[in-house]
Amino acid sequence: MSLRPPGLATEPRPAHCRGAFRLKGHTRKGNNCSTAVGLSPRPYGQALRSKRTNLVGVILPDLINEFYSEATEVIHAELAKANYHLLVYAAPDVEQQERALATLDAQRVAGLIHVPVPGLSTIHDIPSVQLTRDELGDNAALVACDDFAGFRDLSAMAVSSGYQRVHALLGDARLSTTSTRAGGILASAPEAQLHYGNYTAASGRKLTAQALDDGADSLIVGSPRLMAGVAAELKDRGLRIPDDVGVAAYGDPEWYSLIGPGITCFTPPRATMGTEAVRILRGLMDGTGAPERLFLPGALISRGSLS
Amino acid sequence: MSLRPPGLATEPRPAHCRGAFRLKGHTRKGNNCSTAVGLSPRPYGQALRSKRTNLVGVILPDLINEFYSEATEVIHAELAKANYHLLVYAAPDVEQQERALATLDAQRVAGLIHVPVPGLSTIHDIPSVQLTRDELGDNAALVACDDFAGFRDLSAMAVSSGYQRVHALLGDARLSTTSTRAGGILASAPEAQLHYGNYTAASGRKLTAQALDDGADSLIVGSPRLMAGVAAELKDRGLRIPDDVGVAAYGDPEWYSLIGPGITCFTPPRATMGTEAVRILRGLMDGTGAPERLFLPGALISRGSLS
Repeated sequence: MSLRPPGLATEPRPAHCRGAFRLKGHTRKGNNCSTAVGLSPRPYGQALRSKRTNLVGVILPDLINEFYSEATEVIHAELAKANYHLLVYAAPDVEQQERALATLDAQRVAGLIHVPVPGLSTIHDIPSVQLTRDELGDNAALVACDDFAGFRDLSAMAVSSGYQRVHALLGDARLSTTSTRAGGILASAPEAQLHYGNYTAASGRKLTAQALDDGADSLIVGSPRLMAGVAAELKDRGLRIPDDVGVAAYGDPEWYSLIGPGITCFTPPRATMGTEAVRILRGLMDGTGAPERLFLPGALISRGSLS
Repeated sequence: MSLRPPGLATEPRPAHCRGAFRLKGHTRKGNNCSTAVGLSPRPYGQALRSKRTNLVGVILPDLINEFYSEATEVIHAELAKANYHLLVYAAPDVEQQERALATLDAQRVAGLIHVPVPGLSTIHDIPSVQLTRDELGDNAALVACDDFAGFRDLSAMAVSSGYQRVHALLGDARLSTTSTRAGGILASAPEAQLHYGNYTAASGRKLTAQALDDGADSLIVGSPRLMAGVAAELKDRGLRIPDDVGVAAYGDPEWYSLIGPGITCFTPPRATMGTEAVRILRGLMDGTGAPERLFLPGALISRGSLS
């Protein structure tokens, strides 16, 4: 079974979205706080900014995902140099993210680094940078990896290696990151079949079974967790990489080198993403910077799983 | 090269340390704070406890280690139910851990869950539970896995499978967890050769090369990061598991199932450790509990890498 969500953009994004670039935006207004999550409007707005603490909030969907933990490690180290301390929240859904925002506002945090979940649209006046996901829209500062280019390149490798039935295994279709990855794949392999699930090993297993039963000769895999399930399913079926099926995946945990000839992959610049998020946030906190939007290039690592 | 640090206890620990058990201790005194890390002595001691916040500090050596991130996820969820919020610190050495303690004290956190580093001996009056590591001594509450029993069982499996040259690949010899694991291995395999490095993949590669050059026919591996290096080195040398060398390891990341016939392992009860740490901490924070010391049993998973 292959699925394409309605309205999925199959075209490449505009040229200005593809490389590493910086879009200078306007400084966010200081007094547009919402009462939707129980935040009190602050009539004095910016005047109170000086009473903020040296705490910085970090809101993540979970603490287990290796991407978030590595990025948080860098964010922690960078902010510690400037004498800021982190309040880290794991908030996997809209309700919990809204509660985290209300609490951080009450704590008078100086700033916020946020991996938002789909559906969140809370407006607040805490200086903020989105990490990875762009759910809060074009006006919010963002540091993301250029996943469009990365997945475009992975599927181009599959096509140029002669694979004709490319299947993509992806997570939650509602995530901005998922649709960006899908768009990149379709840019190089317009006939690719897309399978949506969630970013877990169990889903990776299930989607692999679907794709193979649909006749896939190659799999483009959207996350390390999905890839763990892909490898397990291929092992159970006695299929070899790349002889029986080609594989390329996102991220680069150490174990990618241990599977078959090693898994060809596209991996984001996690440390740089953390460093840049802190740089932008510090500019917003001290009033000297603008809410830049960065799409940083990742790295393509070729290991032999697509040949 | 094999190394045994001077003074390593090769005997099993006393019987009361081996299973899951609870040692009821005395409630810690409220007024023994130290000025060593710049904490002001508090003449009013317990009287101020009610002015503590609803923040709980978590001090970890790093945020990347999958054990810590999973345990922190559970701790976060459990404390959120009781309306506590987490301040998470990554502090990899004594100096940074002391600074984190001073900051948490200044923030007037209500409690602390702490994975201490070797050499730390700061005394403070924040209600605290040590997680995993027992560096702060017998009077501090502790939730750990019974690694002694786990490593004793892994090396017993190696011996009973007929391996005669068991080598153990371990991390930093100064860590209490490392010496506990070494003790467990020697309890079943007194002739085992111990190799110390650090808990990284690079160290795993180097120690594997040492052990194989010393004639090892089986490897007991002290962490997933070490195991990633072991698997890479065995793959580079073209050695098969278990035909050419037997392997058993600590932890159970998904990829253990993908290497050779799957890696036989001993894995700690991470979720339960987080739950129990929170239970004990809440008792200490509200004055109803004692600083218990728990060594929880782990699970042994046999997959075929030792046969």
